[in-house]
Amino acid sequence: MKSIEKYYLAKERFGTSLCIGIDPDIEKIPHIFPKNAKGLSEFSRVIIDITKDIATAYKINFAFFEIFGADGLKAIEEILTHIPEQTFTIADAKRGDIGNTSKFYARSIFEHFNFDSITVNPLMGKDSIEPFFSFTNKLVFLLGITSNSGANDFLKTKSDNSLLYENIFSKSREWFSDDNLGFVTGATQINEFIRARELAPDNLFLIPGVGAQGGDIEQLKQHKLNPCLINVSRGILFDSTKIDFAEKARARALEYAKLF
Amino acid sequence: MKSIEKYYLAKERFGTSLCIGIDPDIEKIPHIFPKNAKGLSEFSRVIIDITKDIATAYKINFAFFEIFGADGLKAIEEILTHIPEQTFTIADAKRGDIGNTSKFYARSIFEHFNFDSITVNPLMGKDSIEPFFSFTNKLVFLLGITSNSGANDFLKTKSDNSLLYENIFSKSREWFSDDNLGFVTGATQINEFIRARELAPDNLFLIPGVGAQGGDIEQLKQHKLNPCLINVSRGILFDSTKIDFAEKARARALEYAKLF
Repeated sequence: MKSIEKYYLAKERFGTSLCIGIDPDIEKIPHIFPKNAKGLSEFSRVIIDITKDIATAYKINFAFFEIFGADGLKAIEEILTHIPEQTFTIADAKRGDIGNTSKFYARSIFEHFNFDSITVNPLMGKDSIEPFFSFTNKLVFLLGITSNSGANDFLKTKSDNSLLYENIFSKSREWFSDDNLGFVTGATQINEFIRARELAPDNLFLIPGVGAQGGDIEQLKQHKLNPCLINVSRGILFDSTKIDFAEKARARALEYAKLF
Repeated sequence: MKSIEKYYLAKERFGTSLCIGIDPDIEKIPHIFPKNAKGLSEFSRVIIDITKDIATAYKINFAFFEIFGADGLKAIEEILTHIPEQTFTIADAKRGDIGNTSKFYARSIFEHFNFDSITVNPLMGKDSIEPFFSFTNKLVFLLGITSNSGANDFLKTKSDNSLLYENIFSKSREWFSDDNLGFVTGATQINEFIRARELAPDNLFLIPGVGAQGGDIEQLKQHKLNPCLINVSRGILFDSTKIDFAEKARARALEYAKLF
């Protein structure tokens, strides 16, 4: 099955656009877990087990695991076995390199880990992102307009006759099929969000920045959100860091699932 | 010791700007090695052992290892123990994300793996790259102007009153100290290389694209190359894939070391 079809089926099944971001910050996980890769794995598996009837997607953020090197990636391998088969998965890895190297990043994420999708940085241009699209059943989220303040530094500067982020949306839609092409479109920048939807009316948007980063979901909902996945990480994972953390994570996930 | 000092000392000791790129393509390594992470580790260690009295630096390309997930990162951990302490090391990982995430990528590369430097993608702007610079002893190579044809798609488009790559060089030099700031500057784009040197006269350049990618070193040498590291990967690693591969790799490394 193509990843985009899996997205639509999962969304129908779970009835929400909620994507839970697995960002297990080692400094923030409850004290009952050891401060190592095993702790990250155990904490993440509890979060998944307690929310897996709620979330349409899980997004695994590689950085939080890579601080433990090989053991960290082993934790990701373990966690993936806990995600239900019908749930959509995103490797949040922001990879991208010259073509010959990107080919191996794509094989890592799509063959070794078998994720449904990946986040990719398009700065190096078409030939650097093409290898990800050669997996024609998978989905690639290019960084479109990100949720951080640094988006002003380059993405919102003038590029040819438009802004750089607009250029990324337009050019990549010329290069690749909409079925394989999604965009990371931050919730914190409402005007850019609206513009992004004009440029890519039917592409799947991965929307970070709601919750801890300050994006306003009510404001966003006045515009064309779908098709989309709205990611919440810290707002669910660390609502409590005490013994009731799992219960609280489930309660927050249910709230967000209804809201989205 | 600061990484930039280590670079100058290593360069004096080995008398060359040669950086050997450890890009062990699993399809290309000699048949005597198993086609798994163990094979990558063994092949890479042979290459390092046979060239470690020659190369000023080694650049480890994470993609080629990540195809084996946790086992691949284990191979990197093993390989690093074979690199002499005085040799400069580069994690070629092209990382970059929102600040809270970049902090963990930085900790992975600089604390867990203890590399001297990393390649970072600056697309998401200042707050996304700052966490790498908070390791004030280390060195960060931002993608400046890359060696692939896709550099035309975004890096060479007009950005404000200059081109995007020029904007990256100028802004990052305002933000960070030259002691910590290097740039990836491809050998294949001579005019952009010259312009990059004007914008960053004394920053360390990591120069890929010589050899398999077609960059002309004689032409480059007519301009201000230093301080720099010139990377060769395929031209050394895969000169022969027969039983004499190590001997041939050493011979090519010696040739390049003299040339650079």
